[in-house]
Amino acid sequence: MNIDHLISEIHKKKSFLCIGLDVDLNKIPKHLLAEEDPIFAFNKAIIDATHHLAVAYKPNTAFYEACGLKGWNALEKTIQYLNENHPEIFTIADAKRGDIGNTSRMYAKAFLEDLGFDSVTVAPYMGKDSVEPFLAFEGKHTILLALTSNAGSSDFQVKMTEGNEVYKTVLETSKSWANSKNLMYVVGATKGDYFEEIRKIVPDSFLLVPGVGAQGGSLSEVCKYGMSKDVGLLVNSSRGIIYAANTRDFADAAATEAHKLQQQMETILDAR
Amino acid sequence: MNIDHLISEIHKKKSFLCIGLDVDLNKIPKHLLAEEDPIFAFNKAIIDATHHLAVAYKPNTAFYEACGLKGWNALEKTIQYLNENHPEIFTIADAKRGDIGNTSRMYAKAFLEDLGFDSVTVAPYMGKDSVEPFLAFEGKHTILLALTSNAGSSDFQVKMTEGNEVYKTVLETSKSWANSKNLMYVVGATKGDYFEEIRKIVPDSFLLVPGVGAQGGSLSEVCKYGMSKDVGLLVNSSRGIIYAANTRDFADAAATEAHKLQQQMETILDAR
Repeated sequence: MNIDHLISEIHKKKSFLCIGLDVDLNKIPKHLLAEEDPIFAFNKAIIDATHHLAVAYKPNTAFYEACGLKGWNALEKTIQYLNENHPEIFTIADAKRGDIGNTSRMYAKAFLEDLGFDSVTVAPYMGKDSVEPFLAFEGKHTILLALTSNAGSSDFQVKMTEGNEVYKTVLETSKSWANSKNLMYVVGATKGDYFEEIRKIVPDSFLLVPGVGAQGGSLSEVCKYGMSKDVGLLVNSSRGIIYAANTRDFADAAATEAHKLQQQMETILDAR
Repeated sequence: MNIDHLISEIHKKKSFLCIGLDVDLNKIPKHLLAEEDPIFAFNKAIIDATHHLAVAYKPNTAFYEACGLKGWNALEKTIQYLNENHPEIFTIADAKRGDIGNTSRMYAKAFLEDLGFDSVTVAPYMGKDSVEPFLAFEGKHTILLALTSNAGSSDFQVKMTEGNEVYKTVLETSKSWANSKNLMYVVGATKGDYFEEIRKIVPDSFLLVPGVGAQGGSLSEVCKYGMSKDVGLLVNSSRGIIYAANTRDFADAAATEAHKLQQQMETILDAR
């Protein structure tokens, strides 16, 4: 999916909500465990109930890998279901991969070509040749970890490197890589005051923002400092939406929570 | 597997060789493609021919994910085959994972518990709470990326942070994490002269050293500066061994290459 299409969906739906499909068999409603594929059944119900409120879905691969072959199969079915039924949705494989060039190419092929995601999250530690193989895919997007929402982000990401914090060096350096127009960045919402700094370096790039809700980030703060002229934000909520209830009406409960966020986003978009 | 067991295997086999099982269907002998599971058939033949020469095997997950469900299945069969037939072998899932705490726990469970690897490689960018869930597994090991062997390592890893290069800050900081005794580190062999510096920070830790062979690193250089009192090195070769030939006698050719490296290692160990 190209960026213009994503921007147009944001304006149409008045939403820049991304829903994280982090499916944990210990947390989903018990009645689904009787299904042949409980993970996919859960995802399908969530997608059916919320697709008009969100512009993106983001399965985190860890939750699928933790279920082995069945998990990988459910991931395949989920992306296939999204691509067939909701081609207007932007899909993100939250995989945080990254390896030497020929190996990154394998990951890029797996997520962007074979599985058919629109984008994949990538860790920057190994530098240029570990990221460029992802960027080479035309019409696809690479979402580079810049400043994450967890406590451990203070260990290395905000350390000063030659006059700049590591995460700023990551942002700055990545702009010189081949096909950098296909870059987006992960920026944690728990760092509201960092967004202003980040926008000085990447004024137009889309930022994937986890950490609103369960992790404590504020939507209005993020929008105040993080929004670009084309919105430029995908704000993710996972647990706050998909585990809103674990009863038979879990999908309705998820839709209610997604709707609350969408309404806040609509207010913010209308006020611009 | 505990470290003492690994050290004893190194002395018994006079080898600290790790063989990288980076299986690419475009590179394996054509006759294997007729097998029901070409990837596993290839791995099994390589393992059968080389297990007396190596102390560790390291499948890189990218190559398996690039084959989807079949790839994941082949990975499961490979680790199962190793665990059942060669429990003396140290197994490494080269996955380079890392995510926020509850998500890293999923990855740790997938690789260390469900698949049953002895260790997994992890990226440090997200810091302490992204790594500690891996370290929590008793008798298992977490191999943290410190200084990698690729060109992109110069982008961030060797940048100066508050008086220290990023990779040194990673080494230093990681020593304070819970269960840091379960840490090992990835250090690329193309940086022979860095090993001396690294040993000042982690004198006893095991280092997983890729980049010997295809990537141009020198074994004698690595050993001169990187060896600890308990050897403390696992030197990996992937392409140089497993793709030594792509004819019907590919496994013999792999064994010949592995034997050459083992002989060099034996000479180095005997000279200590």
